[in-house]
Amino acid sequence: MDGKVLALAGGTGGAKLALGLARILPTEQLVIVVNTGDDECFHGLHVSPDLDTIMYTLAGLVNQETGWGLSGDTFNALDMLRKYDVDTWFNLGDNDLATHVRRTQLLRQGLSLSQVTEELCRRLGVEHQVLPMSDQPVRTVLTTDIGDLPMQTYFVRHRSKPKVSSIAYVGAESAEVAPQFAAAIADADIIVFCPSNPYLSVGPILAVPGVRENLAKIRSTQLRVAVSPIVGGAAIKGPAAKIMAELGHEVSCVGVAQTYQGICDVFVIDEQDAHLAPDIQRMGLKPLVAPTIMNTEADKITLAGRILQLKGN
Amino acid sequence: MDGKVLALAGGTGGAKLALGLARILPTEQLVIVVNTGDDECFHGLHVSPDLDTIMYTLAGLVNQETGWGLSGDTFNALDMLRKYDVDTWFNLGDNDLATHVRRTQLLRQGLSLSQVTEELCRRLGVEHQVLPMSDQPVRTVLTTDIGDLPMQTYFVRHRSKPKVSSIAYVGAESAEVAPQFAAAIADADIIVFCPSNPYLSVGPILAVPGVRENLAKIRSTQLRVAVSPIVGGAAIKGPAAKIMAELGHEVSCVGVAQTYQGICDVFVIDEQDAHLAPDIQRMGLKPLVAPTIMNTEADKITLAGRILQLKGN
Repeated sequence: MDGKVLALAGGTGGAKLALGLARILPTEQLVIVVNTGDDECFHGLHVSPDLDTIMYTLAGLVNQETGWGLSGDTFNALDMLRKYDVDTWFNLGDNDLATHVRRTQLLRQGLSLSQVTEELCRRLGVEHQVLPMSDQPVRTVLTTDIGDLPMQTYFVRHRSKPKVSSIAYVGAESAEVAPQFAAAIADADIIVFCPSNPYLSVGPILAVPGVRENLAKIRSTQLRVAVSPIVGGAAIKGPAAKIMAELGHEVSCVGVAQTYQGICDVFVIDEQDAHLAPDIQRMGLKPLVAPTIMNTEADKITLAGRILQLKGN
Repeated sequence: MDGKVLALAGGTGGAKLALGLARILPTEQLVIVVNTGDDECFHGLHVSPDLDTIMYTLAGLVNQETGWGLSGDTFNALDMLRKYDVDTWFNLGDNDLATHVRRTQLLRQGLSLSQVTEELCRRLGVEHQVLPMSDQPVRTVLTTDIGDLPMQTYFVRHRSKPKVSSIAYVGAESAEVAPQFAAAIADADIIVFCPSNPYLSVGPILAVPGVRENLAKIRSTQLRVAVSPIVGGAAIKGPAAKIMAELGHEVSCVGVAQTYQGICDVFVIDEQDAHLAPDIQRMGLKPLVAPTIMNTEADKITLAGRILQLKGN
């Protein structure tokens, strides 16, 4: 594969496949576009949870146990913030806090989120291009039985417990596709939807005006590949399965495939779900059965390799 | 002493006497006004070194060894900031960083520095009133042989080594006395100049329009007491002696007393300098010879008590 790859990613699952792709592809062949629907302002600082997860993962700094945050981080600033009686339900490590401080400083100096992300990645030695989906704010808000909750409030503060009835991407209508993202869609030989939550991670990316439309009308030489984050009827991690059920969708890789209809050519399902391949086929998607559970770095590289092989040489 | 006390303070020396006063006086009898000429913006955060030193000292959280910063603090955020290739010569601990994050957040929300300081102090259990000298920015800038240097750049980055030829308080002309500070001058039965650097700590306070004038024309029932930070021809700590010499002043408590002429009634000198009492007297100030080196908390309370006794009951 000597063509260009565009990976769309959200949190920890997305970061795993993004790492696999980055291990195989040289710098100029991979662009990773990341969900910013979870971005939040904590203590006056701009926090971009998914951008950080991808950045820390590619920099080799991520906490391997959690899949997010920094390895060996401490939480002393948070202890002090607690003394000032502010909400500290969002876990901010001391090393991690430095990222948010620096990001906020650069944004206030007038840099776009794309430019800030480029600067932070460069300093941490991340060589592949990592982009936010948009330089404008888009906020994923879940309507639940206890009210409307921004993504991190739902996910971290309430531990994904409230029952979800709908999801909105607030601000999406006036957001613009990040400039290099638009170019990456046009340039990509393969577009990969990483195994991220289709509603909370990929949904916000698709909600940015023009993204879904441009992904729907690609050239015949371009290939769109999505990887199911649902394996054996359950999410590998996170609330994807719970939310699918609450929204009335089928909790299976087939239910995920439905969200990608019209913007996907190949749909990757886990070996556990091989029996569902005919259902995927009937939806007009080409099923690819592969091991999708990525525990080791070798798993990540293997899955990335299987996807890249779809284009041959 | 059941009257009111206004203490003017800068860094570590000021904090020591302020603590002594706070140990003796009930909440409603003491107001501490603090130099903000050292305030700086680091990494987009508003840092108020002298306010923090006073606040941490009164809260019992100060690093006893250094006299500033927080006891047991760690420096992990700073390590990460270093990865982002930003200047990290100003030591910011992780606990300490939380203070600057919270202060910056509240300032951006529109609170004045006085209001922010009140909030931070309250949360840390500081019961006595601590005020910045002004809610507007005043920046102490030293003209040196290597150029103009803001106070922290001179003091921390260059370890007070450059030769000083003059000192300016930039912005002072358009700053206003913090509202409660003006009231505290009028209300005080005793006004205490803590043993802080006369140029870098007390100088900026006196440069705020109206402060020197109001201190010069107090009522006959009010008493103004200054404590020399120079003992035996040397500073207890910091560059006060070096700067006095470079500016062509006599490096002694007499040299300090000269800076207080017209706004001081009683000048406290250390027992080591008892022989200079007649010189102080000749300048029109009443000398008080007392132990002014405050190592233990008992030393701080003792000196505070000696000062308060000047007013009797």
